[in-house]
Amino acid sequence: MSFKAVKGTRDFYPEIMRVRNYIFDAWRRVSLRNGFEEFDSPIFEYLELFTAKSGQEIASQLFNFTDRGGRSLAIRPEITPSLARMVNAKINSLARPIKWFSMPRLCRAENPQKGRLREFFQWNVDIIGETSELADAECVFVCIDALRELGLSPGDVALRYSSRALLSAVLKALNTAEDRIPAVTAALDKRNKVPPEAFDAMLKEAAGDERIVAGVAKFAAMEEGCLEASKICQELNIGQTPEIAAACQSLASFRAALDRFGIGQWCRYDAGVVRGLAYYTGIVYEVFDAGQSLRAVAGGGRYDNLLEVLGGPKVTATGFGMGDVVLGILLEEKGKLPPLQAQVDCFVIDAEESAFDAVLGTVSRLRQGGVSAEYSYKRQHIGKQLKEANRRGARKALIVKSAQEAGLKDLVTGDQADMSMDEAVADLLRAFGVAG
Amino acid sequence: MSFKAVKGTRDFYPEIMRVRNYIFDAWRRVSLRNGFEEFDSPIFEYLELFTAKSGQEIASQLFNFTDRGGRSLAIRPEITPSLARMVNAKINSLARPIKWFSMPRLCRAENPQKGRLREFFQWNVDIIGETSELADAECVFVCIDALRELGLSPGDVALRYSSRALLSAVLKALNTAEDRIPAVTAALDKRNKVPPEAFDAMLKEAAGDERIVAGVAKFAAMEEGCLEASKICQELNIGQTPEIAAACQSLASFRAALDRFGIGQWCRYDAGVVRGLAYYTGIVYEVFDAGQSLRAVAGGGRYDNLLEVLGGPKVTATGFGMGDVVLGILLEEKGKLPPLQAQVDCFVIDAEESAFDAVLGTVSRLRQGGVSAEYSYKRQHIGKQLKEANRRGARKALIVKSAQEAGLKDLVTGDQADMSMDEAVADLLRAFGVAG
Repeated sequence: MSFKAVKGTRDFYPEIMRVRNYIFDAWRRVSLRNGFEEFDSPIFEYLELFTAKSGQEIASQLFNFTDRGGRSLAIRPEITPSLARMVNAKINSLARPIKWFSMPRLCRAENPQKGRLREFFQWNVDIIGETSELADAECVFVCIDALRELGLSPGDVALRYSSRALLSAVLKALNTAEDRIPAVTAALDKRNKVPPEAFDAMLKEAAGDERIVAGVAKFAAMEEGCLEASKICQELNIGQTPEIAAACQSLASFRAALDRFGIGQWCRYDAGVVRGLAYYTGIVYEVFDAGQSLRAVAGGGRYDNLLEVLGGPKVTATGFGMGDVVLGILLEEKGKLPPLQAQVDCFVIDAEESAFDAVLGTVSRLRQGGVSAEYSYKRQHIGKQLKEANRRGARKALIVKSAQEAGLKDLVTGDQADMSMDEAVADLLRAFGVAG
Repeated sequence: MSFKAVKGTRDFYPEIMRVRNYIFDAWRRVSLRNGFEEFDSPIFEYLELFTAKSGQEIASQLFNFTDRGGRSLAIRPEITPSLARMVNAKINSLARPIKWFSMPRLCRAENPQKGRLREFFQWNVDIIGETSELADAECVFVCIDALRELGLSPGDVALRYSSRALLSAVLKALNTAEDRIPAVTAALDKRNKVPPEAFDAMLKEAAGDERIVAGVAKFAAMEEGCLEASKICQELNIGQTPEIAAACQSLASFRAALDRFGIGQWCRYDAGVVRGLAYYTGIVYEVFDAGQSLRAVAGGGRYDNLLEVLGGPKVTATGFGMGDVVLGILLEEKGKLPPLQAQVDCFVIDAEESAFDAVLGTVSRLRQGGVSAEYSYKRQHIGKQLKEANRRGARKALIVKSAQEAGLKDLVTGDQADMSMDEAVADLLRAFGVAG
């Protein structure tokens, strides 16, 4: 019988694991230098945590099961509900703003497609307890900081943002019926994804009223430079409201912070960005590859109600998620992955079989000193051992002649020198060890 | 409604996550310097992969569920079956010996107890395709290397080993009936865990035959120095067999390698170590805290049949697992965890509100250079910002007076100096940056 991995999951063989670690290392390094602390939650939670946030219909998209007591559990499809649960549980003792990141393994019970698997990892970066647009802009900065760290440039990816608060205020001022708002929002979400005529048709179907259709279409086409409350209200022929004024002010502060952070050229306003999730309340954004041939690389925004929805106080929050699957495809396609080879600092070789007794002790000394050291399990001719050293990518070969005598060969340059064992070990510790 | 984590799972708040990362970093560092490459498998597999190795009864101990197609899946309770599956799938292209490690998240549907949770992590280190006892000894070395790296000494933990091959050979020479062997082995496993009389009673019940009981009891009490085939056979009054001779030879080679690696004082022979799992075939070992007040810290051994059982060729394997839960308790109890504080290299402060425009740009420069840099979201007096800097554990404060003028304060010594912004940034990049 032959066993296979489940469809939509990945086997991380060492060469694939090196790519995953390369991405994870960049995510963690960037998070830490931006002042975020790492957290994690259990891989499964009570199902109700997820349905409380996303509704009962989410259950069918999750891997769920029951514990011995008959309670429904599910593998986490995202970490934000767990984050909210954890923060709520310690809300009175956590110093704010809370700046946390995580790189959780997540699972969704859906059919695998390109860029969308049943099991994946998603870097999450969140700031909780800070209402200022500085927090939104900071999250965007962290997102861009990572993309740049991974070798991408504004020619490779673009971050587009908008304001759910402004959209809501405009729809309200247009007297859009409450029950029409989700459909209108969904139509707007398609603006960049379907031909203009299709967008118009969807919008008409969603809004019903001609005046609303015209207003939304005009609003969607407005450039960021025109997003002043007075201009919007004039253009859409609606009365100015405090909500519109506040949302415009907020968007302007956000934009100013992006520019101060020096990442303005990565980011542009686009009213078509609304994000699928119902819970966003303010600035929202998405990162796509420049050609938009892939799914979103990252997405996020402000979600000021979630902690309260999940039983906590009303504490504001903003953040984003970046998955490893689309990012990995993009880095591969753009040739941005550096060569990631397994490396061994030193391969220890016995010049003759009688010297092997000293090999293990030497390997032990080197490893304890932080030098990655290998040797051959087989007692074989020195030439074969050197061949194995090269196959393993070793940079130096330490040739053990006796417990006291050694030769040190540089496998890159081919240089070789005889010396005492102590000298050779000291040399290697200096070059590769933790004290080096 | 208030949500809780599922019993037996852990919320990794930042201070707990730092401990997890401290342990993971040591595991990874030690693995790499010992020449192992990292791999990982999906968190869930087809249930049959686990039942093929451990029998149908394992299913009730797993979190299992069905996919949309109705196939049974389970969250992995261990990674070894997945490792065997992955190696089998590429057995012809992987260079041997295969030296892989992993730090998988694992789940078991059991009632939580001290040191035993429903969700945990387990460092796994395996060598596949090498029959030499050097490979077994090397795995033990890696295990000890990590314990030492984490600050433990032979006074804190002990590794006890034995040989399943020798036990099998002895039981066979004693003419133990095949169907009695599991019970006899299980009784032996209790030797160190129950009073001598209880052990004797269990052994009698298991073996039936008085001669076998006496033989096993004598064998169990033998010191390692006496483990020569001739001495064993004389002591137990049995005829010498090739299996006994080979197993004694193997044990002696293993012991010699431990000594050459310089870890002899951490390890001792103990016939009572048999390991619960049915699939071990050679050397087996366990690590316990010296007081044996906790569950096993680590355990492993040779399992030469697993790859074949899981549909592959007969390729030998040896390795061990070390969980994070018992290890964490032990490090905590022994006071071996270093202070693990969140740290910020530099806190950037505006001397007055008009200077804030320059703060974000400076923060951006520092972070991109690899310096972890923070600032206050609130525009507030310099004293309050310094207080926040101290609360965040910052080592330096960069006081921005204008886009060109700055002050640099050492928050440890209190020293402060005025300089140009460029000088201050260069100073910080040198001290904390990636180029520093």
